[in-house]
Amino acid sequence: MRAAVMRKDHLVVDEVPEPEPGPGQVLVETLACGICGSDLHFLQHAERLAAMPVEGTAEQRFDPARDLVMGHEFCAKVVGLGTGVTNLQAGDVVVSIPAIVSGEGFTTVGYSHDYPGGYGERMVLMAPICIKVPDGLDPDLAALTEPMAVGLHAVAKSAIQPGEAAVVLGCGPVGLAAIAALRLAGIEPIVAADFSPARREHALKLGAHQAVDPKVEPAVEAWQRIDGAKPLVIFEAVGVPGMLDQAMRAAPRSATRSARILVVGVCMEDDTIWPLMGINKELTIQFALGYTPDEFSRTLGYIADGTLDIAHLITDRVGIAGVPGAFEALANPDDHVKILVKPALG
Amino acid sequence: MRAAVMRKDHLVVDEVPEPEPGPGQVLVETLACGICGSDLHFLQHAERLAAMPVEGTAEQRFDPARDLVMGHEFCAKVVGLGTGVTNLQAGDVVVSIPAIVSGEGFTTVGYSHDYPGGYGERMVLMAPICIKVPDGLDPDLAALTEPMAVGLHAVAKSAIQPGEAAVVLGCGPVGLAAIAALRLAGIEPIVAADFSPARREHALKLGAHQAVDPKVEPAVEAWQRIDGAKPLVIFEAVGVPGMLDQAMRAAPRSATRSARILVVGVCMEDDTIWPLMGINKELTIQFALGYTPDEFSRTLGYIADGTLDIAHLITDRVGIAGVPGAFEALANPDDHVKILVKPALG
Repeated sequence: MRAAVMRKDHLVVDEVPEPEPGPGQVLVETLACGICGSDLHFLQHAERLAAMPVEGTAEQRFDPARDLVMGHEFCAKVVGLGTGVTNLQAGDVVVSIPAIVSGEGFTTVGYSHDYPGGYGERMVLMAPICIKVPDGLDPDLAALTEPMAVGLHAVAKSAIQPGEAAVVLGCGPVGLAAIAALRLAGIEPIVAADFSPARREHALKLGAHQAVDPKVEPAVEAWQRIDGAKPLVIFEAVGVPGMLDQAMRAAPRSATRSARILVVGVCMEDDTIWPLMGINKELTIQFALGYTPDEFSRTLGYIADGTLDIAHLITDRVGIAGVPGAFEALANPDDHVKILVKPALG
Repeated sequence: MRAAVMRKDHLVVDEVPEPEPGPGQVLVETLACGICGSDLHFLQHAERLAAMPVEGTAEQRFDPARDLVMGHEFCAKVVGLGTGVTNLQAGDVVVSIPAIVSGEGFTTVGYSHDYPGGYGERMVLMAPICIKVPDGLDPDLAALTEPMAVGLHAVAKSAIQPGEAAVVLGCGPVGLAAIAALRLAGIEPIVAADFSPARREHALKLGAHQAVDPKVEPAVEAWQRIDGAKPLVIFEAVGVPGMLDQAMRAAPRSATRSARILVVGVCMEDDTIWPLMGINKELTIQFALGYTPDEFSRTLGYIADGTLDIAHLITDRVGIAGVPGAFEALANPDDHVKILVKPALG
């Protein structure tokens, strides 16, 4: 089948072996698959991630010398059934947590040499965790379930409550997903920060009460201007070195309820902080990853019933041939949020 | 009066102006004052701390060009009353949170140019927050209230509960205080780690269930050997660059209850972490500083009634003339825990 293939540190469009569904698995045809910022980082830091200690991540068996097909934010159509599959049939449109559990342990679809992701024409998924997409829901929107669930999880993990305030640093897909989830959780105010006017516009559409350009007014200062009193949770959704330190320095000192920082931006490089900043403000730093199965399926429900109105987040659609170019476009993502890969486009 | 004075980046014994109690303040004579690891760090990093941003700390007005008398872990005898003091009289033996609130804001006794600390013969304290030491309690033990309260606070801040496990990295005074507080909180197992055999011995006396030499067996591995199942809180009580990263790498991954790291060691330098480690394990990093007034007075009570049996922590006693030498001894603290400064010793 055709796929955009990660080969060492770059992407090529090539033929790869057809995946075959094992017992309890289904063969699916990719309808739409979002390009995730983590995929850009993964391509950039492949060598280091390959050397990652065993206890670290699911990507531990990654071998940069072998081809890999990324893509873990997908909506797909069932086209073949492995043995023992009873909950699905050909033609079903599904989303799924990009996970495969096999005798060899846990693997992530799209970060595995054995399970190609959605930048290829077809994938193999685990039937029991596939969720049928409600009739009438555009597969392009359903493909946003995964990234939006990341926001839902980050907000749950932060334990933020109504009566508290949120600052969101970075309005890429992850920051925007957090903003949408904060709004659902009844948080006010939500102050978003991004250099890009287009992304600030998306933030406001998703429910941010203020969206600031940090060059003009730092986010925490904006929060101080419009609130400054409620306990504050800062969501770090940029994920580049220096941002955590910046958040720690900007965090307010509070005698009553110390500020918390929720790190949802995935920084794959070493990062430097000044611990004394954390000590003096008694900060909490909470890291968040992924989502629970329940958060994932609830997110699909919110998209299907219109609670999450997110069509505006899709800023481009490309075929497999367009993936390398889309990665380049996302390296300077000023006006982009989510680019979908749709193999049917060629 | 005589004092061990911080002059630029070194200590000298010299005469300094006699402090004078203002309204609501008392003049006290230092009976005993512990040397804190933070004082060693403060001396070492004075220049940087002087440049610290305004929002950071109480040390914000520190001017390295001016003399300063450190010492904030004290027990003292009242020898003079400022106007309006009704709760104390001359001869009372007291301990106090080393804080002064005045028209100019909040200051820390022992980190202030205006309020000399316990490395001098006399100090000025705020009468309303002085606590009388119960009759019969040795002032040397009462002087340990402050550092032991730091442990009580760190354990409270971690929110660790019976049924959870603790690893304590570093058995200096702060780590040992955390161990004692963990034992009081009913935590089991408590695994302590320190290179020094003498310090490991103190850890066991205070209630650690295991005390390991990390060169022989890393603390988290020891916990895995003897428990490995309970949710884990790692107390980072070393406070030097690299320890937080080490704790993040060593922290176990858990599907049910992510590991937490409580940072109570004060690292005053920049520190490098690999955020991906935090993300992949969904770690929580909680920084802790100081104690509440309630924790402080409860700690004094525990020392007075013998709940905290801590006489063995005092490994030396010096006069004011001995302070510079004691700082040198503590730079290689193999066999030391707490050295008390007792001006009466000369």
